[in-house]
Amino acid sequence: MARINENYLKLQAGYLFPEIGRRVNSFISDHPDADVIKLGIGDVTEPLPRAIVEAMHAAVDEMADRSTFRGYGPEQGYDFLRDAIAANDYAARGVDISADEIFVSDGSKCDSGNILDIFGADNRVAVLDPVYPVYVDTNVMVGRTGQADADGRFEGLVYLPVTEENGFRPPLPSERVDLIYLCYPNNPTGTVATKEMLQEWVDYARANDSIIMFDAAYEAYITDPEIPHSIYEVEGARDVAIEFRSFSKNAGFTGVRTAFTVIPKTLVAKTGDGRDHALHSLWNRRQSTKFNGVSYPVQRGAAAAYSAEGKAQIRQIVNFYLENASLLREGLESAGITVYGGVNAPYVWLKTPKAMSSWDFFDLLLDKGHLVGTPGSGFGASGEGYFRLSAFNSRANVEAAIERFQKVTA
Amino acid sequence: MARINENYLKLQAGYLFPEIGRRVNSFISDHPDADVIKLGIGDVTEPLPRAIVEAMHAAVDEMADRSTFRGYGPEQGYDFLRDAIAANDYAARGVDISADEIFVSDGSKCDSGNILDIFGADNRVAVLDPVYPVYVDTNVMVGRTGQADADGRFEGLVYLPVTEENGFRPPLPSERVDLIYLCYPNNPTGTVATKEMLQEWVDYARANDSIIMFDAAYEAYITDPEIPHSIYEVEGARDVAIEFRSFSKNAGFTGVRTAFTVIPKTLVAKTGDGRDHALHSLWNRRQSTKFNGVSYPVQRGAAAAYSAEGKAQIRQIVNFYLENASLLREGLESAGITVYGGVNAPYVWLKTPKAMSSWDFFDLLLDKGHLVGTPGSGFGASGEGYFRLSAFNSRANVEAAIERFQKVTA
Repeated sequence: MARINENYLKLQAGYLFPEIGRRVNSFISDHPDADVIKLGIGDVTEPLPRAIVEAMHAAVDEMADRSTFRGYGPEQGYDFLRDAIAANDYAARGVDISADEIFVSDGSKCDSGNILDIFGADNRVAVLDPVYPVYVDTNVMVGRTGQADADGRFEGLVYLPVTEENGFRPPLPSERVDLIYLCYPNNPTGTVATKEMLQEWVDYARANDSIIMFDAAYEAYITDPEIPHSIYEVEGARDVAIEFRSFSKNAGFTGVRTAFTVIPKTLVAKTGDGRDHALHSLWNRRQSTKFNGVSYPVQRGAAAAYSAEGKAQIRQIVNFYLENASLLREGLESAGITVYGGVNAPYVWLKTPKAMSSWDFFDLLLDKGHLVGTPGSGFGASGEGYFRLSAFNSRANVEAAIERFQKVTA
Repeated sequence: MARINENYLKLQAGYLFPEIGRRVNSFISDHPDADVIKLGIGDVTEPLPRAIVEAMHAAVDEMADRSTFRGYGPEQGYDFLRDAIAANDYAARGVDISADEIFVSDGSKCDSGNILDIFGADNRVAVLDPVYPVYVDTNVMVGRTGQADADGRFEGLVYLPVTEENGFRPPLPSERVDLIYLCYPNNPTGTVATKEMLQEWVDYARANDSIIMFDAAYEAYITDPEIPHSIYEVEGARDVAIEFRSFSKNAGFTGVRTAFTVIPKTLVAKTGDGRDHALHSLWNRRQSTKFNGVSYPVQRGAAAAYSAEGKAQIRQIVNFYLENASLLREGLESAGITVYGGVNAPYVWLKTPKAMSSWDFFDLLLDKGHLVGTPGSGFGASGEGYFRLSAFNSRANVEAAIERFQKVTA
């Protein structure tokens, strides 16, 4: 008889964002006239930049003509896109990453989950707490954990708390770990990592033969020139880090779907008998076998993000969201709320007033303010008592949200 | 120290199609002036139907305007597409599949690999031989096999030969199996399954609590009204089958990327202690956690495949490829080659002349005829001595290919 993967039964009721969706839909069906403002899911709201729209139209037209039609593309992505990424995201910042170390995909969420395919079951995994839930859930799914405790922490994972108490700077693990997820600018706290801090992690990984999974989905929001955009700006990182990037939060691709993952050819992990094996060839085999490349018109759109026009248009959108973040930050602070993040990042991380629980505060904001945010505890036990607001919205909604927020918490 | 998934080391050198690509590229670099005709990879050549092009342009324009912009869509696909699929591919054929049993994805290759995520490690798997290599390789990757033998058969998998000797009708397994991959119209043999034959498989699965993975990527090529397009046309299949469908080979989406997987809510597999668990909820959790939905303009394009214009335009393209298949079949037969498939399917499966090995024949065709096909042995040990030709090409190329084929084999 066919058997299920029982690791799935260890997962909590729902992935965080669908759970938020359920509560919001239930509220809306009870209050059909309420003007609900959503600052919950980190989803962009501004239209695609004109340069990208034009590139996608042109590519669709290519697909309409036999002489320019394209069928299966390379599973790793077209050279025109990989070359543009290597030149603009890496070479231009003095970072040595070649085009064939870049794997184009349809999403960082997919990649950060799928990457586990190429690692053995017996790796010890560390995550920050709070954390983007996908890192945890995908490890649970492949059986690298036991059950969750009452706080939602899974047996077998190493949780590194990032809270007010340690200045949101994750401590190095006190026990050896093999895989470490780092996300900077951080989701959900909106904090950033200095070069010196990343160097400490790279040194740790080099000393322990560990691999860092570095999620840089929000790098476009960095305005401070001292903050690295890529972990490969740090000495030695090519030997210990995989980097995940996305077009979602800069070019507005949450509905268009493109991302990429960098696996340097120098990056190795061990076989059971202690030999080094390149991760690049394993991921290449994984993608060739289980993936068929990203939609051609979408790849053309992503490449246009690197044209002069595309860059300027994206800069404008990112700045607009950063202004939203700044307004949110100031608006909440003026209401006496303690706020973190919101600088070099599109997320504001606040302490709930009156030490309310994160979900109680979620329900209060929704009920009284018709505002949707994300409960900090949804990102991990150490997120309890915190709350995330996203800067992805119209200016009018952000301003209205601040007013409502001030009323609800007055 | 971080450890790799060593199951990957069991895989043969390359996935079949990249290996073909390597040989062809090497030939072309040695013979830059050769006019190589490719009937290897089953990749479409005709441009996208006009109705789909228009729908994609309209959707790109929606993304260019703040009031119609769409960010994250449902991981399962938009209702407009799921509804169109349910109505046209199922209800219209009298099949009871609801829209929320349909999961839209970016490819059947991805789905047929990823589906293994929700099954336990201890399932016994049967595949036809020859077989689409993805089914085998993805099972190797998750550790459900031992090593490969000299013929490329992996220990632990049950291979069901489909050859001239049994009329290409796979025998029921002589030992109990839990997961069974069936692909009809078949890749690579181009043969089809009658309703009576599928009923036998569904009955087997019901009697053994097995799950059938039914790949119907080529259903559009069925012209015989007696041949089922979906396994759910067979009594009882809702309780034992997952179905994979694609827009690649009908609407020409190999470069555009959309597919879907059907998991009926009535479909269950067992927990370790013998309880039934719905696969639908597991797959939903998998997709919500590890996938972010298909590009919005692409989903609009796929939905246009179900408009009256879209259907007519697709029919025309499919008929064109079917005529190619028929020409190939006749052309090879007139050269004295034994040919299977090519009716109700876009693939022609031929016996190599003079009992040549499949790869020797590949090299001969490439070298002397500048023709690329796919070696049968690449699909499995029982494919040795066979060769696959794809009907996806221009008429001129198909006609030239037949001439060259006749010359080479004369």
